[in-house]
Amino acid sequence: MPDIFESGMTKSTANFTALTPVTFIERTALAHPHRTAVIHGNIRRNWGETWQRCRQIASALHRLGIRKGDTVAVLLPNIPEMLELHFAVPMLGAVLNAQNIRLDAQTMAFMLDHGAARVFITDTEFHDRTRAAVDQCDNRPIIIDVVDSQAPTQGERIGHMTYDELLASGDGDFTWQHPDDEWQAVALNYTSGTTGNPKGVVYHHRGAHLNALSNVIALGLHSGAVYLWTLPMFHCNGWCYPWAVTAVAGTHVCLRQLQPAAIFDAIARHRITHFCGAPVVLNMLINAPEKHKRSFEQEVTVATGGAAPPAATIEAMHTLGMNLIHLYGLTETYGPSTICEFQDDWNSLPASKQAARIARQGLYTLSMSDMMVAHPDTLEPVPRDGETMGELMLRGNAVMKGYLKNPAETDKAFAGGWYHSGDLGVWHPDGYVEIKDRAKDIIISGGENISTLEVESVLYYHPAVLEAAVVAAPDEKWGEIVCAFITRKPGYESVDANDITEHCRAHLAGFKIPRRIEFSDELPKTSTGKLQKHVLRSRLGTA
Amino acid sequence: MPDIFESGMTKSTANFTALTPVTFIERTALAHPHRTAVIHGNIRRNWGETWQRCRQIASALHRLGIRKGDTVAVLLPNIPEMLELHFAVPMLGAVLNAQNIRLDAQTMAFMLDHGAARVFITDTEFHDRTRAAVDQCDNRPIIIDVVDSQAPTQGERIGHMTYDELLASGDGDFTWQHPDDEWQAVALNYTSGTTGNPKGVVYHHRGAHLNALSNVIALGLHSGAVYLWTLPMFHCNGWCYPWAVTAVAGTHVCLRQLQPAAIFDAIARHRITHFCGAPVVLNMLINAPEKHKRSFEQEVTVATGGAAPPAATIEAMHTLGMNLIHLYGLTETYGPSTICEFQDDWNSLPASKQAARIARQGLYTLSMSDMMVAHPDTLEPVPRDGETMGELMLRGNAVMKGYLKNPAETDKAFAGGWYHSGDLGVWHPDGYVEIKDRAKDIIISGGENISTLEVESVLYYHPAVLEAAVVAAPDEKWGEIVCAFITRKPGYESVDANDITEHCRAHLAGFKIPRRIEFSDELPKTSTGKLQKHVLRSRLGTA
Repeated sequence: MPDIFESGMTKSTANFTALTPVTFIERTALAHPHRTAVIHGNIRRNWGETWQRCRQIASALHRLGIRKGDTVAVLLPNIPEMLELHFAVPMLGAVLNAQNIRLDAQTMAFMLDHGAARVFITDTEFHDRTRAAVDQCDNRPIIIDVVDSQAPTQGERIGHMTYDELLASGDGDFTWQHPDDEWQAVALNYTSGTTGNPKGVVYHHRGAHLNALSNVIALGLHSGAVYLWTLPMFHCNGWCYPWAVTAVAGTHVCLRQLQPAAIFDAIARHRITHFCGAPVVLNMLINAPEKHKRSFEQEVTVATGGAAPPAATIEAMHTLGMNLIHLYGLTETYGPSTICEFQDDWNSLPASKQAARIARQGLYTLSMSDMMVAHPDTLEPVPRDGETMGELMLRGNAVMKGYLKNPAETDKAFAGGWYHSGDLGVWHPDGYVEIKDRAKDIIISGGENISTLEVESVLYYHPAVLEAAVVAAPDEKWGEIVCAFITRKPGYESVDANDITEHCRAHLAGFKIPRRIEFSDELPKTSTGKLQKHVLRSRLGTA
Repeated sequence: MPDIFESGMTKSTANFTALTPVTFIERTALAHPHRTAVIHGNIRRNWGETWQRCRQIASALHRLGIRKGDTVAVLLPNIPEMLELHFAVPMLGAVLNAQNIRLDAQTMAFMLDHGAARVFITDTEFHDRTRAAVDQCDNRPIIIDVVDSQAPTQGERIGHMTYDELLASGDGDFTWQHPDDEWQAVALNYTSGTTGNPKGVVYHHRGAHLNALSNVIALGLHSGAVYLWTLPMFHCNGWCYPWAVTAVAGTHVCLRQLQPAAIFDAIARHRITHFCGAPVVLNMLINAPEKHKRSFEQEVTVATGGAAPPAATIEAMHTLGMNLIHLYGLTETYGPSTICEFQDDWNSLPASKQAARIARQGLYTLSMSDMMVAHPDTLEPVPRDGETMGELMLRGNAVMKGYLKNPAETDKAFAGGWYHSGDLGVWHPDGYVEIKDRAKDIIISGGENISTLEVESVLYYHPAVLEAAVVAAPDEKWGEIVCAFITRKPGYESVDANDITEHCRAHLAGFKIPRRIEFSDELPKTSTGKLQKHVLRSRLGTA
């Protein structure tokens, strides 16, 4: 029997549009042309102007020959040009490759070649590395210099033209090209692989659109929300927030450099309602000198992720008067893929218990469709007992299209029809996942699995500890032992390894207590604030 | 050259899920199982229970033989069973045909046959009409009786079993069936055609999912929002709010019958944060006796649509302490398709000017992708001058799949790749559309086009006017003349046609002043509160 609900009802331009984040800015420019779109130092532009500039840049790139499937690489901090390119490049069906601004020239060169970048838009502050990278390339991208008035050092112009010259060559009435297919690539983000070459994670228009909407709802972004760019836009395309904030006609407040005083100042002055950042950024705020802290009247919601916030950090954020939402995600999931949904009855819990609940990674977001904690090979789900370890696996529309030119790794990541996160954790009876470690970070000492996160979480409760990172050190007897790297807060220089060990003894099982404790002035971090444990391991000779 | 962003990156269950509103309830039941999902009289069920009941009903319908593409018709007011069926039926890939509960048996019979209903779930209050309808059917659906404790009269059981018996026969662990394709039909809604047989508008899973998300954002539904069901769920599937409120784990407060005292009572008692209703519902609240009004502390946001709210209504709603959002839509667009976005600078306007801005239908919503006001045949856009009339046309993912078994009307509605709304209006310089009339409602008097909405809007400003409807009356000299039907507020019985004419003379061009004014105790309305102008015209012998 023919399906009566299929015959005579086909897709047309009237009732089907490929999902893309570009429609967000087109609609917002129509709905709120006079509302402030972007603030950067003394620069303020409204949505009408921003939309015009995006189309102009798209037109100019088109004149340079950029077409569907071409890669436009960028090396830019959180500045208006970076925001504009999140729309201008997709308007052409081209692919935005936002590179981490702290990477070395060799890695940059690898990405420019591997991603086949045809244009490379870079900030002149980074001209040395840009030149070094391009010199190592087989590929010869057209270089465009961004000269930002807020840059600490201006650097040299090394490109074929500046961004402003590119802009001037474009047509503000350019008609953008809707993607033929929402599965078409929109962005390319390289994972910061600790071994071998980085992998190129490909996002599509559908995922970017849906994850942006999911983020709007997860963070409660209202029309006209004011968003502070503490999270780098090159990190998973700023967790899709360039698109999410635009969808609600909010205001993007740029921040070129992460300094606590500047963050507090922006929160108070621009009445910031939302921002995102790794726990290390939150700790920066919490531990800022009192003279840098500012009071504010509006409600401020902060999304954190990239690492589980230690309970001490969560408590301290509440003390600062900010709502904290804990998200978890990976480059492969367009940023946030789980959220620790706040339960109505958690409000009645003591602060430390509440913080422990919030520190869990939680449940899949609206843009995902399923998750499980399961055996990495058999895909057998673990019991929801809060104890049995397994690998977090996810499904949904905000999982990457795949790894660029790497079908073997793509197939491996999607084995059995689930995305394998590589993160190990437990499944609680309430359905929440709690990540215990990256697969490669877990410590096995005397046959016992030890979560480095658990040990770090205890260390953070010691009043002297500013930052803590726990890794395995090789040991003849135990296989591995627990080793802690610690930075102390100012004024606590006299706290020593014995004090820390005493503290751990009160809160941890004996086999989890660090056998080796190293104090350090600074811990090695990636540009997004993730601790680089492989650097610490290499100090121990175990990388 | 092969596209590097396509090769080796195919869709799999890991990274592609067909969009469907069913994922909302599955996720919400996981995220907030203990939060109240539905309130109806003394009934309170949480999301865990509601999800369990939905799966149980789906399982039971499956045992009755319901499969993908089968139609399940329902004749139900705003009660929990109606909400549950918005998830249970799509879980099977079946199609929900929610019928208007005020229709006559003959029309019901037409729909049951045309939509090929296999099951008909009806409230026993309507048993007479249900029996009469089924008696006239060629089709023989299985009848299920819903016996609602809140029904004003219980009526007879005429079905094969009750809803509770059906529920008891199902399995709460039923595994639901994800749609193969998001373009698959999810619902069938008949338009209340004023001539000929109603047309069956088909919705798909993709549109329902996306329009629900769009509504969450448009109305600012936050996690745990408390939504009052003043709008009938049978009306465009309650504008997709059964799905939208569920997506944010909100609470559905059912309301079987629309009475101002019950609405105010619910707002105060359940701390309602959001509801929707046609302007006639708002007027019911505004004109309620003072003893029925209740004060409330929370912020209440009301979305209105179905007809443009007269400026007087908008002002009065603000006086009641409620935020008003004006939406516009049609059955063919899953409910809301445009929204009158509130501009930041409207707050400084005098109330009457602000109300006039809000009364416009505005701009396309996030689930749509484009709109224009254009010539119905040539599709030439009209100038954005706020004066030239044209037909509103829309494009986007929340435009229907098509009309069931009616390719000719489907093609007509989508001519030229735009959805033709049939509504006439003007395009303002700020891009906002203002509907002046349905194509068939416009009055042409002495060659001049007269908007009945404009005349009604003026009539509503007269203190005596409770409701007003303007239609054309045939006239030998002028072709048509303006005729107004008016109901007066209590205490204003002495106001006569001369008083009304005087009022109009002060606010309208001479040719727009009603030549004929009829007072009436009540105006004929559809079950969703739309004035039935064809009934009024038939009183004048011009239908």
